[in-house]
Order: sequence, then structure tokens, then C-alpha cells
Amino acid sequence: MSESFEQLWTDLSAIGRDPHTGGYRRGGWTETERAATAWFVDQCTSRGLDVQSDGIGNLVAWWGPSTGQGVVTGSHLDSVLDGGAFDGPLGVVSALAAVDQLRAEGFQPSVPIGVGAFVEEEGSRFGMPCLGSRVAAGVLAPEKALALQDRTGVTLSDALSDAGVDPAGVGPSPLLDRMGTFVELHVEQGRALTAPVGVASSIWPHGRFRFTFGGEANHAGTTLMEDRHDPMLTYAMTALAANKQARLAGARATFGRLSVEPNGTNAVPSQVTAWLDARAASTEILDSLLVAITRQAAERAERDGTTVEVTAESVSPVVDFPAGLRDRLAGVLDGAPILPTGAGHDAGVFSDAGIPTAMLFVRNPTGVSHSPAEHAEMDDCLAGVDALATVLKDLAR
Amino acid sequence: MSESFEQLWTDLSAIGRDPHTGGYRRGGWTETERAATAWFVDQCTSRGLDVQSDGIGNLVAWWGPSTGQGVVTGSHLDSVLDGGAFDGPLGVVSALAAVDQLRAEGFQPSVPIGVGAFVEEEGSRFGMPCLGSRVAAGVLAPEKALALQDRTGVTLSDALSDAGVDPAGVGPSPLLDRMGTFVELHVEQGRALTAPVGVASSIWPHGRFRFTFGGEANHAGTTLMEDRHDPMLTYAMTALAANKQARLAGARATFGRLSVEPNGTNAVPSQVTAWLDARAASTEILDSLLVAITRQAAERAERDGTTVEVTAESVSPVVDFPAGLRDRLAGVLDGAPILPTGAGHDAGVFSDAGIPTAMLFVRNPTGVSHSPAEHAEMDDCLAGVDALATVLKDLAR
Repeated sequence: MSESFEQLWTDLSAIGRDPHTGGYRRGGWTETERAATAWFVDQCTSRGLDVQSDGIGNLVAWWGPSTGQGVVTGSHLDSVLDGGAFDGPLGVVSALAAVDQLRAEGFQPSVPIGVGAFVEEEGSRFGMPCLGSRVAAGVLAPEKALALQDRTGVTLSDALSDAGVDPAGVGPSPLLDRMGTFVELHVEQGRALTAPVGVASSIWPHGRFRFTFGGEANHAGTTLMEDRHDPMLTYAMTALAANKQARLAGARATFGRLSVEPNGTNAVPSQVTAWLDARAASTEILDSLLVAITRQAAERAERDGTTVEVTAESVSPVVDFPAGLRDRLAGVLDGAPILPTGAGHDAGVFSDAGIPTAMLFVRNPTGVSHSPAEHAEMDDCLAGVDALATVLKDLAR
Repeated sequence: MSESFEQLWTDLSAIGRDPHTGGYRRGGWTETERAATAWFVDQCTSRGLDVQSDGIGNLVAWWGPSTGQGVVTGSHLDSVLDGGAFDGPLGVVSALAAVDQLRAEGFQPSVPIGVGAFVEEEGSRFGMPCLGSRVAAGVLAPEKALALQDRTGVTLSDALSDAGVDPAGVGPSPLLDRMGTFVELHVEQGRALTAPVGVASSIWPHGRFRFTFGGEANHAGTTLMEDRHDPMLTYAMTALAANKQARLAGARATFGRLSVEPNGTNAVPSQVTAWLDARAASTEILDSLLVAITRQAAERAERDGTTVEVTAESVSPVVDFPAGLRDRLAGVLDGAPILPTGAGHDAGVFSDAGIPTAMLFVRNPTGVSHSPAEHAEMDDCLAGVDALATVLKDLAR
């Protein structure tokens, strides 16, 4: 078995890796993401699995009984900009390897087992995380999805057409009709897991907020400091406040994306737009975190003679995975630890859509993810495959 | 006379004004800048002036004796991104109007009077302020100038070719051989002038420094705040420190341009690059300002587990305009106030090149410049034309 996983991992990891940074830019429907997807389809086909696709391009490859509901496991093949090798692909490769292991053991599933890959989970191209699963679950309307644009103005509709896919087919997915249970294996992302494998309890509430800081463009060399209305200063104070408030609340707050107007070296900016990513253990904590950051931003804007507007671009409530399924997994895995995560996943979308859903995490020794330095030890990856095989055997027996 | 200035001003101001913002984007050799230049050439030709151009496209239109050294006055027609109407064009239009006024008075210059327009003074397209005057004065080598690139990767060489100009002609300018004296009229830019018209004493030293803050990309939702190496925090603290230190030093410090990697909402950045524009009354103050800002940046980087590197992209020493010429202008202008400026100008380049140079400033009631809100009152503009005519009459008598 271990040879199989290692070979699969080596093959997939090579696809689209930047030779300089070691990272990936597998945005949805890009050349590198399509290459990874083609590799996945080849792997499924060579195993004799029945590969099914829906209109937006989510894939499930079935093993076992050809009809009826079953257990689907898998993850995604796209990446954030300059992402690492594990986030997404580990779940897909582990699913293939677990199926190989069960077959090698002579296991015969009594319900179908599906290996899935869901498109544009990171939202790195079209700005909508879990795009494929949201459309599949019917929580994102096809017309809204198709109108999404990437940073160069290409719509999802255009991207699908360019990939030879008819946009008219985008909508709620028949694949989900057969998804009796969903289990996603994923690399853990925050140093919270000290055992090789754990089971998810919940996904933290998550908000993306756009802060627009408005000021007055002016000459950087001549304008007296006291005459300025510099939105960069208001932003800078807000970024520091967000960090401090998140620490106080045991939460997370990040300003990782910025846009400056006119962005000239010799000009006091007229506007700074900054996106806050905030997550916390409960909606109450998330709300009060945002209130605290917004209050400090407004106070500083008053001092700077600038303005600040806060727009919630998306706010996701907590996802509590069903306790019965969670405890069943922890049980067959000999009391594996149970822990929450701050990261969104397709598993959260499917769980919200009413599909009994669970997640397995594989230990991440540094907590680094969304980075080329993202890593899990091979022994832990193999423990993850073993755990997934054990869970599938229990759920499909 | 006043009709002439107002009509000229109305005509030129209309060229390339954005109907929404009221601002201008007249980068060098762009369509709008070329239109303004064509208007200028038409105006000179219709007055019977002898329009001469050098290899990079600087223009001087001569009146009076057809040979020998004379007095050149003028400014530039390009703008910063989203700039205002006055910075540059006021000096060009005032020069035309002053010549009109002197002719109407029947004045006969004993030396040539030239009306000049110098290209890409702002450096908003190719990143090099005073590009035209630097090349003309021989302080910027033609091969370096021609290799400069705009934000889309177009070189100056390409831009000139596209404009029908042979790049081989770029180099030290014969126009300067006839420039016995240079006088630039410019809108004042910092609320420092309370009379309608003033005379420049000096241009402050000016540095552009690139700060590169390095950290570690990571997942914004899962990475514990205490596990992060977030260069955005180091940058934010540095931006606030720059503001504070500039206030303490009576200087100017601005972070107006930023680049974030990977610039994703859900990613702790791996790198933030920020450009500091710093100016002060003396090189000593500028040096100690940079030391203070760099020290605070380094201290914060230590706390954040990030790195900071500072690269000087350009540092210009003080320009002291010759005292004799300065006092002569102030004298004929009935004791007009004498004041320094924090802004760079072609006048500084020509002065450094050994050409006796002076500047006149027209009052700016708000100090706003490099912005669509940049403004001078019409009465002050007319006072500027009168002052310039008086100065030309004195220098060319």
C-alpha cells in the first residue's frame, strides 16, 4: 500500500509546481488545475472506477454497487496563489490510496464508495470559496456563479466555455443524490493536532469584510503632515488593531489583500481598500471582534480626517458536524482526538446541505499552510490513508 | 491680457480631463499628453514663435533675436496619475500669456525669450522624475533612459518609436546651449505661500526608498496568531512610525505605493513591498529621518519574526538656486517672499547643470496638489503672469 500512496503523491505533486518557489497556482480551470484533474481522471479510469461529472465539473468516481447512495470521500485539486502541495490533493490521493488498500484486502463494499474532486474550493480564481460544492448543493445560484469574474475580467461562464464545457449545464448536482455520507480527509492547518490523525468537530464561523479607507490625494513632498488626510495611516492602525483584537479574543484576523489608489510613490493615497479575513470559535466572538476592529478604525479615521466603510462580503456561520458520525469515526479510530478548524471546506457546504458529513485531519507539524512550506510527514500521511480506509470499511460494510 | 490667459487656460485644461474625477492621466507620450503638446505647438506656431525640439521631445519656442543665449521660461504638460490642472500647465500657459503681454506692451527683447515644455517631468509613466530635463542636461545617459519601462513593460525606446520619434536622437540637448537663464513658474504645493506670488530659495533633498518586508505565507483562518510571521504588521507599524518621525523632524514621509504577495484575502502575506517618499530641509535631517524609520521597522520586524530590507532607489541632494538671481527677481517683484519647496522640478535639474535658474510660485490656498482638487485662484494666476512678464522684461532688456 505505502508504495502506491507514495507514487501517487510524487506524480500529482509534480504537476504545476513552480520550480523557483516550490508552490502552486492551480486556480480553477487554469492549465495547471486542468492537468491535475486530467491526472485524477486517468487514475480513476485505470482503476476501472465509474467517473461521473456534473455541469460545473465536480467529479465522483464510483467503486462497488452501481446504484444507490454510498460513501463519498475526496477533496479538491485547486490551490490558493502560491499554495502548497497538501491542501486538497492529500484528500484526493488518500482517497485513491484507501480504495487501493481496501481492494488489496479483498473488501467488498455493500454500498458504493465514491472518490471525489470538487472544483475551485479555494476560490483563488473567482473569489468564491467552495464554488463547486456550493453550486452542486444548490446554495449558489447558477446565474450568480456564471457571472463571477477573475482578476482579469474573465467570467466563470467564459472559463467553462474555453474549457469546452457548456455553461448551461451548471446547477444543482445529481452527484449529490448518491452522496449518502461524505468524508473529507485534509491536512490540518494550525498545529492543533498532536496525534497523526484527528476527527473534526466543527468549522469556525468565517467572515470576509472589505474596509474602504477614503482620504485625499496629495503631493508627498509638499503637503504638510498636518494638512494630510492619508487613508494609509488609518489602514495601518486598523491592521495593527485587528491583530491585537484577534489575540485578545483567541480568534484570527488577517489583512492579506490590499489595493491602493493611485498607488504612486510621490502621492498621498486617495483610497486604500483592504480585506479582513476574520474567524472565531463562535458567531458571538466573531461579531464582537469585528465591532472592536471597526471601532478602532473609526477612531483613527476621526484623527486622520479620513473615512472608513466596512462591507461584509461573506459571513459563514459555524458548521457543527453531526456528533453521531463524528463519534463513530473517533471510535473506529481508537479514540482519535476531536478538534475544530478555522478553515472552510467543501465538507462544510455538504454538511450544511444536510448530507451526513465528517472530516479527518492529518497532523501538520508546523501549522503552515497556503504556502509552499506546507508539509505533513509521510508516516502521518500513511496513517491518514489507513484511517480513511478504516472509516470507509466501517461506513460501507 | 487677462482674456488671453483665461482663454488659454480654459482650452488647455479641457484636454484629457477625466469627466468623472476631474483629474488627468497625462503620462509621457500617452494620447492625452500628446494632445496637450500638440495644442502647445499650435499656440507657439500661431504666435510666429520658432519652435525647436530636441531628440527626446523637449520643446522651446523662441521669440526675439534668432541666435545667441536667452531667457527660457516654461514647465511641463504631463501629470501624475489622477493629477490636477495646475502642476506644470500653469507654468506653460503663463509663459505664453507673459509673451503676449510683453508684445502688447511693445517690448523688444534684446536677447531671445524661449517658452519651454519639458517631457515626463512627473515620472508617472517611466518612474523617473524630470526625465526630459535629465536627459537634456546629460545627467541621465540615453541608454539608461531608453531602457526605462512603464508598468506594462513598454520601454521609452518603444514609446518614442510609437510616437514616430527616432530613439537614436535621444541625448544631451542643443536647446540648452541657448538657455542662458531658466525661470520656471509653478503652482505652490504646500500652503507655504501667503502672498499671490513668491520666489524659490531651494528644493529640499528627496529620497525614494524601497522597503521590502519578508515573512511567511500562511493560512489566514487556521494559523495561530502567535505562529505568524506576518510582514503586513511590520509594514503597518513602519507606516505609522514614518508619519510620526516626519512630524517630529518637520519633514515629509509618505508610504503611497504598496505591493503585496500573494495578495489573497485568506492568506497571511509572504511579502509586502512599500515605497517611502521622504524629504527634508537638509540632507542631514533626511538622513536621520531615514535612520529613525529604519530602526523602528527593524525593531518591529524582530518582534514579528519578519525581515526588512531598505534600498535607496534615488536620493537627490538639496538644490540651492543662485542667490543673486533669486534676489534680483524678488527685487523687481517688490520684495516677493522667498521660500523653499519640497517638490522636485526641471528647474532643479537645470540649476544643477550650471544654468542660472530661478522659480516663481503662485499661491495655492489649500496646499493640495497632485490631485484633481489642486487649485489656484484666477487673480493669483494673473498676478503670476504679471510677475513673470516683469521678470522676463528685466532679464531680456
